[in-house]
Amino acid sequence: MPLRVGFYGFGSIGRLAARVALERGFEIVGAVDIDPGLVGRDVGELIGAGRLGVRVSSDPSALTGADVVVHATGSFLDKVYPQLVKLIEMGLDVVSTCETLAYPWYRYPVLARKLDEKARAHGATVLGTGVNPGFILDTLVFTIASTVPLVERVRAVRSLDAARRREPFRRKVGVGMDPAEYRLKLERGELTGHVGYAESVMLISEAMGLQPTRVVEAQEPVVADRRVESAGIVVEPGRVAGVRGYGAAYLGDREVVRIELHAYVGAEDYEEIVVEGGGYAVRWRSSGTPGDPATASIVLSLAEAVAEAPPGLLTMVDMVAFRPRARVA
Amino acid sequence: MPLRVGFYGFGSIGRLAARVALERGFEIVGAVDIDPGLVGRDVGELIGAGRLGVRVSSDPSALTGADVVVHATGSFLDKVYPQLVKLIEMGLDVVSTCETLAYPWYRYPVLARKLDEKARAHGATVLGTGVNPGFILDTLVFTIASTVPLVERVRAVRSLDAARRREPFRRKVGVGMDPAEYRLKLERGELTGHVGYAESVMLISEAMGLQPTRVVEAQEPVVADRRVESAGIVVEPGRVAGVRGYGAAYLGDREVVRIELHAYVGAEDYEEIVVEGGGYAVRWRSSGTPGDPATASIVLSLAEAVAEAPPGLLTMVDMVAFRPRARVA
Repeated sequence: MPLRVGFYGFGSIGRLAARVALERGFEIVGAVDIDPGLVGRDVGELIGAGRLGVRVSSDPSALTGADVVVHATGSFLDKVYPQLVKLIEMGLDVVSTCETLAYPWYRYPVLARKLDEKARAHGATVLGTGVNPGFILDTLVFTIASTVPLVERVRAVRSLDAARRREPFRRKVGVGMDPAEYRLKLERGELTGHVGYAESVMLISEAMGLQPTRVVEAQEPVVADRRVESAGIVVEPGRVAGVRGYGAAYLGDREVVRIELHAYVGAEDYEEIVVEGGGYAVRWRSSGTPGDPATASIVLSLAEAVAEAPPGLLTMVDMVAFRPRARVA
Repeated sequence: MPLRVGFYGFGSIGRLAARVALERGFEIVGAVDIDPGLVGRDVGELIGAGRLGVRVSSDPSALTGADVVVHATGSFLDKVYPQLVKLIEMGLDVVSTCETLAYPWYRYPVLARKLDEKARAHGATVLGTGVNPGFILDTLVFTIASTVPLVERVRAVRSLDAARRREPFRRKVGVGMDPAEYRLKLERGELTGHVGYAESVMLISEAMGLQPTRVVEAQEPVVADRRVESAGIVVEPGRVAGVRGYGAAYLGDREVVRIELHAYVGAEDYEEIVVEGGGYAVRWRSSGTPGDPATASIVLSLAEAVAEAPPGLLTMVDMVAFRPRARVA
């Protein structure tokens, strides 16, 4: 029996995930979206896979019978909370790309406790994940940290050329904008930059048995100091090329965890994870991970486990058994 | 309550794991070994941690009360099977560095089925892991493969300078020997080289939902073509510098999984994992992972999960929820 997957949110990530699901031999039971341009259209035709006989619906009951629902509508738990509650009340298991759901107890502890209670009451499992937060800057970090006797410090960087991402991504990281205007929109929450620095830091901390005394996160625009061109995208001098941000966890004055995201036009595509401890450092570096396909792939790579897991609100720490330890003294 | 850890086998890996356990704040309840030079000695003094009041015993009952036992005595399941049965019959959870236990159904299916049955009957959990097999060439590979939509091919290499390893490691990879004599000892099983190529291949295959039509493994001596010196170890021309080996899984004629180990004097210290699929490749490369500390750390990083897991004979596929998918058509 193939896994039966539903999709709540059929924008670019939802559609990409649906393509990955089909490639992997899973069955698509339904797709839900509020976009009038999508409702009523054939799911298979929308993803270039030919007619599937399943139409996008505006009604979540279209997902009845799914073993697991891929939820991909927004970054902030308070906004998507009613959607998740609806799915939970239908008894459906959910794997979501909502960034703040990756460690919901950090930013939304009240909603997290309510979601967990509702999920248990209705026999539903809920997990937030994706490439970042969810993988490169957290799960892969504490996985690799497991090779070190006692962790002194972990650092991870994900650097990506915003020119090679989708237009909505470039918009949220401010590409081409006036720096003062972008800073204002970041402050007001009208644009978000990257969401999830603290969530990644908390996932690593919890996996390492660490209760940080302080968690910080910040991001700022990267301003082009000359004309930058990459993959057909041009940024003029003085305009925003993207963002650079970080999250960190401290024990007293000691920074134990630091993760950084560099997302601007012309940035090198790479990731690096460095774990120090026990007198040596382990260093892994990649040639870059394409964000959208990786998010879709990671979500589908966890779909079976979410469908089988016990009810409740889970995190990636529940999905990966590695428990390295950080030095606390 | 700190985790209470016992040690079955208190050779170099067992002692290193005990040091890591203490550093992490775990409690050592006992250690068992048959070496008359170890029996009766204080565990803490043997690992340079000061008197602990726990003595090495030749009697496994010294491990009574452990939440989990670190088992580190040998590479071959048929040899260590009676030791594992003894621990299981005591109802103890076990995490073992026995290489062939990493995927015991491959080389010892009869013993694997018996161990699983006994473990369930006695409420014990058993897991085989370590740096390799167990991590670099398998678990980390299928973890990273989860970022790719549909895997066409995975390749992983672990390369290490045998000059920087323990003398027993150099002995098993034949350093300094006559090539013909080493080949003979490999054939006769008097020396093993690396053990676990096929186990790593099977872990990756199972995690990717793949039943290989064929699994192969082979290794051969690397013969010095000139005088090689590294970290104070010299290999004369014409003598064995170490081994190079591989394991691979096929679907028909297509090689889907290939893992390699290069372990010889003068080899570069690095690891590389490349996953191809969905029209792109993801590539991660390390600056090398020190084998013995990593094995001790990985075993301890899984000790808590093994103590909490349901009874039975588990593999690393049970410890990490990622399920990428390989193209099977």
